[in-house]
Amino acid sequence: MTIKTSPLAPTSQPQLPAIKGVRLAVAETGIKYKNRADLMLAIMQPPATIAGCFTTSKTASAPVDFCKANLAASGAASKASSDSKAAAIIVNAGNANAFTGKKGQSSTAKVGDMVAKTIGCPDRQVYMASTGVIGEPLDPSDIINAIDGLVATARNDAWSKAARAIMTTDTFAKQATIKTQINGQPVTINGIAKGSGMIAPNMATMLVFLFSDASLPQDIAQHLLSASVDQSFNSISVDSDTSTSDTVLLCATGQEQTNFHGADDRALADFKQALDELTRNLAHQVVRDGEGAEKFISITVTGAQSDIAARKIGLSIANSPLVKTAIAGEDANWGRIVMAVGKAGEMADRDALSIDIGGVRVASMGEADADYKEQDLIPHMQGREIDIAVDVGIATGSATVWTCDLTHRYIEINADYRS
Amino acid sequence: MTIKTSPLAPTSQPQLPAIKGVRLAVAETGIKYKNRADLMLAIMQPPATIAGCFTTSKTASAPVDFCKANLAASGAASKASSDSKAAAIIVNAGNANAFTGKKGQSSTAKVGDMVAKTIGCPDRQVYMASTGVIGEPLDPSDIINAIDGLVATARNDAWSKAARAIMTTDTFAKQATIKTQINGQPVTINGIAKGSGMIAPNMATMLVFLFSDASLPQDIAQHLLSASVDQSFNSISVDSDTSTSDTVLLCATGQEQTNFHGADDRALADFKQALDELTRNLAHQVVRDGEGAEKFISITVTGAQSDIAARKIGLSIANSPLVKTAIAGEDANWGRIVMAVGKAGEMADRDALSIDIGGVRVASMGEADADYKEQDLIPHMQGREIDIAVDVGIATGSATVWTCDLTHRYIEINADYRS
Repeated sequence: MTIKTSPLAPTSQPQLPAIKGVRLAVAETGIKYKNRADLMLAIMQPPATIAGCFTTSKTASAPVDFCKANLAASGAASKASSDSKAAAIIVNAGNANAFTGKKGQSSTAKVGDMVAKTIGCPDRQVYMASTGVIGEPLDPSDIINAIDGLVATARNDAWSKAARAIMTTDTFAKQATIKTQINGQPVTINGIAKGSGMIAPNMATMLVFLFSDASLPQDIAQHLLSASVDQSFNSISVDSDTSTSDTVLLCATGQEQTNFHGADDRALADFKQALDELTRNLAHQVVRDGEGAEKFISITVTGAQSDIAARKIGLSIANSPLVKTAIAGEDANWGRIVMAVGKAGEMADRDALSIDIGGVRVASMGEADADYKEQDLIPHMQGREIDIAVDVGIATGSATVWTCDLTHRYIEINADYRS
Repeated sequence: MTIKTSPLAPTSQPQLPAIKGVRLAVAETGIKYKNRADLMLAIMQPPATIAGCFTTSKTASAPVDFCKANLAASGAASKASSDSKAAAIIVNAGNANAFTGKKGQSSTAKVGDMVAKTIGCPDRQVYMASTGVIGEPLDPSDIINAIDGLVATARNDAWSKAARAIMTTDTFAKQATIKTQINGQPVTINGIAKGSGMIAPNMATMLVFLFSDASLPQDIAQHLLSASVDQSFNSISVDSDTSTSDTVLLCATGQEQTNFHGADDRALADFKQALDELTRNLAHQVVRDGEGAEKFISITVTGAQSDIAARKIGLSIANSPLVKTAIAGEDANWGRIVMAVGKAGEMADRDALSIDIGGVRVASMGEADADYKEQDLIPHMQGREIDIAVDVGIATGSATVWTCDLTHRYIEINADYRS
């Protein structure tokens, strides 16, 4: 199977600046891939804090369990404590260490222990993510043998190498950076991500690692991250399948002193906005690399009972195979959008429902719009970016979600070739 | 687009016997299809009762609203009343009369009124279903003009014609019959159905009409039907999309006197079993005609928290594009089954989970089974019938659901050709 870069890939990737207090290194373990880096280590200087959001899967991978346990252990310390909470993140691509039973658990423990010993930090300050095949035991020795070299070679400008090392079926590396300020103190946030199908040919997952030089207490970092993930990574879908390994981590190295009081301090407003912009950017890149994607679809739902209801309706549209295939066929088949609104199970007033595609009103007041002509939509449907707006006529809840179309190439990637 | 009969179609269709108290007729209206019958009328003799189950869509079609209102009106009469509750069912194919606003409502009222006048029954004894394009107004005059002819030509042996008249993208007509008894009195149940995608190329839906000569009070018919639909039509999925028009009706003409006391009377046990068998048979036929289907997939979940939890896990597997494409590719990719169990959101013990495919244990105790060799499964994966059994290791809840694979042909039907 030849891997061609997605037609929806950004035309250029930003150069990520150094973040004070973060160094990165990559290595080749050969666990699955040959002649490419497949292991990434990030080392954070004290007093770094960390926040995390993980898959809701009931069959989560061993590294997800490992991260959750360490996050809980670091949260157990006093919030006011200026102790470092996180010292390292290690990520391998090619084997997800998911559904690997007690062997999987033992593997994460051994890798974590070796990272901690090598850089000289408590075990609970190590975080971990794995992406790749499910159900194959992950032999920790290939990773353990690489750790000395990783620690020795870590540097502050290896962002693009790190972004490439965590790829599986991704067709391009995903990076983003943004500058902002907290109370006048300039700070930076960098992010790298991987993801293509929620679970791709026996592998893949969404992994995202965010780093900032800001000083953020652990609980505030978690508050900001959870909110930001809701409007970005929890608002996208490629194929409605949820990985066993989805992981988003935000590290704040605390190298830049930033003053504010609590998560709701207005001094954090710019930082919040920057974080949201960065996570949306990376989330869009994941959708743009969706398996077989030919079109990037934005769906905005308004008039819902609540923002949560709006997102549920939006994801019902985004996950409908019939909506996604219609868009692949460049067919403005709004009857399928009506169907998807109806099956979401959230309140919708059928007789007040309106639908716009590409800014053209196609349906209003519960029926086809009198002025709508299908030919008006042809140029929009033939483009790469499809915009759908639905008002369900109940209240003021709104949300935007993003997805891609469902094409022959998706079937090719997932059915025609054995993984 | 050439329509080839599904490779999963039953090799022969049964000849349905007459049911005392039911006559059927078909007609060509030309609303959408040319040179084929697209309108079906069933006339039931007093004292027929009726029960119905409908789509859960929040954007249900006008005929669904019409049936629900009439069912509520007939339920308002005394349960003990021996008044007839249902006199006719009229069904058209080609236009769903869904998302058609007030025009849609007026259309159902006019058609219902004309049927009632022509056969001489109250308006509330008429039932209706429409399947086809969403969002196009349905001109009632073509149907109204055909009613005289339908009533004049109705006969007790037109079952196969009726089954063909309600087809849209179906590649074969769906019929089933079963003989059973209530307290020694022989009775028969006939059923016809249509369905291929939940919503197919701008049309399609699942419609099912069941008829028996048994005497069943309205409330008991409803009780039996709801339970039977749960284990049949609510346990299948082609593409996870829910139509605006799904309708299942059960008519009991009361021509055979049957004695029993309440829905739980053991005298009804055989009838219940026969009804369940018949509805499962028709539900399987719908899956076997799933758009692009090449394989019929049975998924049995055991060890769940409850039967409802088991069905939810089963449908999560059945609706996973990654599981369905793996099966299309004849790949026993059980990692994707683990993923789908995990995303269902129901309790599952990752470390007690076991998976069998085609009777071969592939995973047990939370990891790949030590004795499993992929080559053992090749003959099963290459066959037309795929069996998956999952035990989630929590309690004793169980359920079986049925689906089909996701193939290039599904994309072709839904994206490559404009509807």
